[in-house]
Amino acid sequence: MQDSNATSWHLDPNRCFSPEPSQRTLAGELYQEVRSLPLICPHGHVPPEWLAEDHGLGTPADLFVIPDHYVFRMLYSQGISLEALGIPSRDGRAVEGDHRKIWQLFADHFHLFRGTPTGLWLKDELIEVFGIDMRLNGQNAQAIFDELTAKLAEPAFSPRALFERFSIEVLCSTDAATDTLQHHQYLRDDGWSQVRPTFRPDQLVNLDMAGWRENIDLLSERSGLEVSSYRSFIAALEERRRFFKELGATATDHAALEARTEALDPAEAERIFERALQGQLQAGDAARFTAHMLQEMARMSCEDSLVMQLHVGSHRNHHQAIHRGFGRDKGGDIPVAGEWTRSLSPLLNAYGDEPAFRLILFTLDETTYGRELAPLAGLYPCLLLGPPWWFFDSVLGIERYLDSVIETAGLYNTAGFNDDTRAFASIPSRHDVWRRVTCNWLAGMTLRGFVDETEALEMAHEFAYGLAKRAYRL
Amino acid sequence: MQDSNATSWHLDPNRCFSPEPSQRTLAGELYQEVRSLPLICPHGHVPPEWLAEDHGLGTPADLFVIPDHYVFRMLYSQGISLEALGIPSRDGRAVEGDHRKIWQLFADHFHLFRGTPTGLWLKDELIEVFGIDMRLNGQNAQAIFDELTAKLAEPAFSPRALFERFSIEVLCSTDAATDTLQHHQYLRDDGWSQVRPTFRPDQLVNLDMAGWRENIDLLSERSGLEVSSYRSFIAALEERRRFFKELGATATDHAALEARTEALDPAEAERIFERALQGQLQAGDAARFTAHMLQEMARMSCEDSLVMQLHVGSHRNHHQAIHRGFGRDKGGDIPVAGEWTRSLSPLLNAYGDEPAFRLILFTLDETTYGRELAPLAGLYPCLLLGPPWWFFDSVLGIERYLDSVIETAGLYNTAGFNDDTRAFASIPSRHDVWRRVTCNWLAGMTLRGFVDETEALEMAHEFAYGLAKRAYRL
Amino acid sequence: MQDSNATSWHLDPNRCFSPEPSQRTLAGELYQEVRSLPLICPHGHVPPEWLAEDHGLGTPADLFVIPDHYVFRMLYSQGISLEALGIPSRDGRAVEGDHRKIWQLFADHFHLFRGTPTGLWLKDELIEVFGIDMRLNGQNAQAIFDELTAKLAEPAFSPRALFERFSIEVLCSTDAATDTLQHHQYLRDDGWSQVRPTFRPDQLVNLDMAGWRENIDLLSERSGLEVSSYRSFIAALEERRRFFKELGATATDHAALEARTEALDPAEAERIFERALQGQLQAGDAARFTAHMLQEMARMSCEDSLVMQLHVGSHRNHHQAIHRGFGRDKGGDIPVAGEWTRSLSPLLNAYGDEPAFRLILFTLDETTYGRELAPLAGLYPCLLLGPPWWFFDSVLGIERYLDSVIETAGLYNTAGFNDDTRAFASIPSRHDVWRRVTCNWLAGMTLRGFVDETEALEMAHEFAYGLAKRAYRL
Repeated sequence: MQDSNATSWHLDPNRCFSPEPSQRTLAGELYQEVRSLPLICPHGHVPPEWLAEDHGLGTPADLFVIPDHYVFRMLYSQGISLEALGIPSRDGRAVEGDHRKIWQLFADHFHLFRGTPTGLWLKDELIEVFGIDMRLNGQNAQAIFDELTAKLAEPAFSPRALFERFSIEVLCSTDAATDTLQHHQYLRDDGWSQVRPTFRPDQLVNLDMAGWRENIDLLSERSGLEVSSYRSFIAALEERRRFFKELGATATDHAALEARTEALDPAEAERIFERALQGQLQAGDAARFTAHMLQEMARMSCEDSLVMQLHVGSHRNHHQAIHRGFGRDKGGDIPVAGEWTRSLSPLLNAYGDEPAFRLILFTLDETTYGRELAPLAGLYPCLLLGPPWWFFDSVLGIERYLDSVIETAGLYNTAGFNDDTRAFASIPSRHDVWRRVTCNWLAGMTLRGFVDETEALEMAHEFAYGLAKRAYRL
Repeated sequence: MQDSNATSWHLDPNRCFSPEPSQRTLAGELYQEVRSLPLICPHGHVPPEWLAEDHGLGTPADLFVIPDHYVFRMLYSQGISLEALGIPSRDGRAVEGDHRKIWQLFADHFHLFRGTPTGLWLKDELIEVFGIDMRLNGQNAQAIFDELTAKLAEPAFSPRALFERFSIEVLCSTDAATDTLQHHQYLRDDGWSQVRPTFRPDQLVNLDMAGWRENIDLLSERSGLEVSSYRSFIAALEERRRFFKELGATATDHAALEARTEALDPAEAERIFERALQGQLQAGDAARFTAHMLQEMARMSCEDSLVMQLHVGSHRNHHQAIHRGFGRDKGGDIPVAGEWTRSLSPLLNAYGDEPAFRLILFTLDETTYGRELAPLAGLYPCLLLGPPWWFFDSVLGIERYLDSVIETAGLYNTAGFNDDTRAFASIPSRHDVWRRVTCNWLAGMTLRGFVDETEALEMAHEFAYGLAKRAYRL
Repeated sequence: MQDSNATSWHLDPNRCFSPEPSQRTLAGELYQEVRSLPLICPHGHVPPEWLAEDHGLGTPADLFVIPDHYVFRMLYSQGISLEALGIPSRDGRAVEGDHRKIWQLFADHFHLFRGTPTGLWLKDELIEVFGIDMRLNGQNAQAIFDELTAKLAEPAFSPRALFERFSIEVLCSTDAATDTLQHHQYLRDDGWSQVRPTFRPDQLVNLDMAGWRENIDLLSERSGLEVSSYRSFIAALEERRRFFKELGATATDHAALEARTEALDPAEAERIFERALQGQLQAGDAARFTAHMLQEMARMSCEDSLVMQLHVGSHRNHHQAIHRGFGRDKGGDIPVAGEWTRSLSPLLNAYGDEPAFRLILFTLDETTYGRELAPLAGLYPCLLLGPPWWFFDSVLGIERYLDSVIETAGLYNTAGFNDDTRAFASIPSRHDVWRRVTCNWLAGMTLRGFVDETEALEMAHEFAYGLAKRAYRL
């Protein structure tokens, strides 16, 4: 056993691999072949202004705690208030402004992340990106804060410098359909076309979302088309898709509580939209319209070839007090069970065989991987399965995904990896975990005689690079 | 790493075993004891005429591609049309007739099956049954086509010769309740009573199935009883069961979307049946009648001791264009979530303790293994759990089944293995995978101290042979 | 291979550990550090009178077969009647009274428990607690019966002697809210305050439960408050909680078919309660009232700090003939699928952040571990996840729980282990399995580089001792 007072730490070069020596060795050999491949980041939430403006990344608390709901939700679950963690409030309540205090609180509770993917990423970032050689704890918190602060002030830690150090080949952001894309425009003008936008119309197609009416007005303004009817709404969305595509977008993204799809009669769609404009929605209108708009978005993808992404199953803003006090996307979203087989039938039967159409699916209900998603992806030409999302983007989550999906769907109906993160400095760590876990999984498959080493190596390349690049038409 | 140009291939003698040396060794020892046991095939879809007529098995495309929806659905999912694969159309459209071209297309895309059970079975068949020593690819496709064609012309590759070479002790087909069983009769007369029919009445008990009325007429004809009422319907089914049993059947088979069971009042059953005869079904009639007929079939099994099989959870003909163009059972069926606890309650409370009654359950929803099926099978004397079905009849699928079921239900409430296949030449491969995976699983159980080697060996025999034989009363 | 006639048996010192040598070694090292820690037993069903009266534990059949529904349900599933096993009948039918015959029947079928947790516990108990050195079978059944009988007559095998030998630090029983707690009072007076009651009001809050009206009268009697209205019902429950707390209770326990929670308007609660008193319940009343009472119990816990436990998902008395003939809790309960995210929302939004409130959740639907329970526990400060319950309290069940829960919820949002058993002599075996499996899991986490040895050791202590002790405020 090690000395229990040890606070130095290091990264196990064989981390994520099986303890079994033959699998570990082969996993390591496969990993060596793919570890340095460029990163394809086709779906994420890094703000493009970070790269456009190329300012510093702020304090250690700005980088590691305040924007990362994986981090502060775990602290919250153990009784630490969001105020004390400096999370910006929506209702004007005071929150901690001293980032040294926030950092101390984080460090005092760093043990909470033991055995979690957040713990794995944080350790990897601190060591690999920032060269911190002591395990973070309450004693050394301020010293590490100083060290990180010094590093963050160096030019080598600007967003663009890190982007290049991380060997990112392409990075897609996620942008409201009404966004001006000014930062993307700036980046393109500046020769940074490897940063691309993604078209996300959730706040327009969900009629009951707070601020919907204002967003429709914004859509009119941004599209240059007055949205006064369902027909003009569709035209404006099409215009916006064209604009996004012009600025480099290759994909759209859609979040929904359920996978329900349904083609409404155009007259019915018009009536519902009319009621929404008049603020007179009836029960069921919003859910039916959302289902219809998924169908419409598939139609548009058949026409403009933007790859459609669908994320299903998050019950948003479960913790109402957090939502009231701090707003959306603050860790208060919880998964619910999902259904795909019946729900996607209208969409797939309408567009599932169209050569230009591609639909990438993400779930928060792992039980659907093997039961519904893999059989569907193993049948419909348009379908690819996205990697594990959110709570399941972890070592064991990835292993369950591979175990559940590949036997039925095959490798080539999956979409590789995406990091789906706003935590910019964690991007290499997340890809590294994916590459390690897929190589380890392939090593197991090889040693069990299901594929040979030649095949495993080709598959490792696909997992690490090829699948995502082709899936998103990058 | 191996030479990536290598195209020779071989079967790893330790395939499916754990990479861990002690488990691998013990798995191999257990496997040696059961690998050559005769095959019990109590449920499958090999056409009995193949064995009755004992003709050749056709071209390589006839054997490996055209009848196997596991194969052509994977190709379809990557954009290859069913027409190009020579799948017979239902609507008269032209399909590829040149089997060399079909074979080439299959070979060009053989990499799609990497890591899938189909890939494992195909490799095993090509090497073990046909002696092909090169991995199939686009370059060698025609040479392998020639080699297979030559083999298939030899008498040693006739269905009966293969049946004996495969060491099949008993093979049960699945036959419509209205079948004449002429091939079974012929086989019995010819001394081949090891081929047995299974009674499958789905097309009679599902009132809304296409062709139901014609099937009722056929039932009248075949049973010699005019079916003009619910009462005579029941009598005709009983007569047909008697006939099947006379020709060697020991089991019935039932497919249903859901496990719902319900005893209707006889007068109510009569009224629904009447409406069906008059083509005036009301909403819900068909589902209630199916639920009632499962209950009735259980009653009949109590009387005639035919073992009842129930396969639940396939949403049939999900891909409507494939269904329209090519008909049923073309890979377009997708699982849905299931429920057993409440659904089977009426049936189990009526017949679950009857000594003559045996009910074997199959699911496409793995989440029900541990939550519902194992607890039910560990309680009701009539129940046995069938092996993983369809998409889950794979190495990892079998492991998840064993991990989920045995701790709660025990070994002795399971029904061993069945291959459930129409792909005749794949039968030994499928049983071999089951035997390897169960032996490997038992080796793990032994090394972890849950059973000792003596117990493991007895359990390996049960998995490979005893359980299926007793479950089906063979 | 071993001699198949061997009937001697022994406990593998490395049982439950991985076969992989490095993991096995590290698991063993961690286990050495925690194996002898005292047992915290915060939830179970050992009758307190056993310890109060400190009589002998009866015959071997009394100890191992008759009270253990895990044992007799497996025998029943293979066609052995409950009458033959001496299970006391509710309807006066005769049951076997010769405990030697019952024991013989059990021994004849001991192989049914191969690979089950019951088999593991029984072997461990027979060897470790009773020193039986032959594997139980039909041949040696009577000799072992004699040996056990002799042991059970010794003072060292009295309940209190075993309690101390087992190194139990605290043992909580589960007691009806109307219980007099006389045995607990006696034990406290006798200096045995390490035995504590738990407040279980299920038979009062479920309005449609058989005997509800009589239980309400009993509640009036025991609380000294006449329960004639909803208001007085609440007051009486609060009085009983106070009484339980006075006698050492730190927790309450609630079983429900579903996790539904709902705050009724007090007037509505009063109306429903009124209808119940008058025997005029309307459809839906009982389910709504139960949901409301969960909410109320949470409110009371905020006030008196009793830890609330909620067990969800058992469909009670599925086998109606067993229920009629032998009563409740006879192995005839079967899990159903569950939902937590939406169901607990009212309760969590009302009380989830209250510092005094703690809610420990148990499920019979493993699919909710990762999808709903871990995300909820990783957010709400009040929540902790209980260990695997019932059918899942097994080696593989514990491993699935750890794999599904820890990455998202972290270690510190779980509640350690409880044995939940009436089988007194199995308590050390059950804790030992938990300790072995958690140590083995931590060894794997360490070797894969997710935690280091220092962290793993601290976590092993938490799993074995600290988590349960703190979770239950013991």
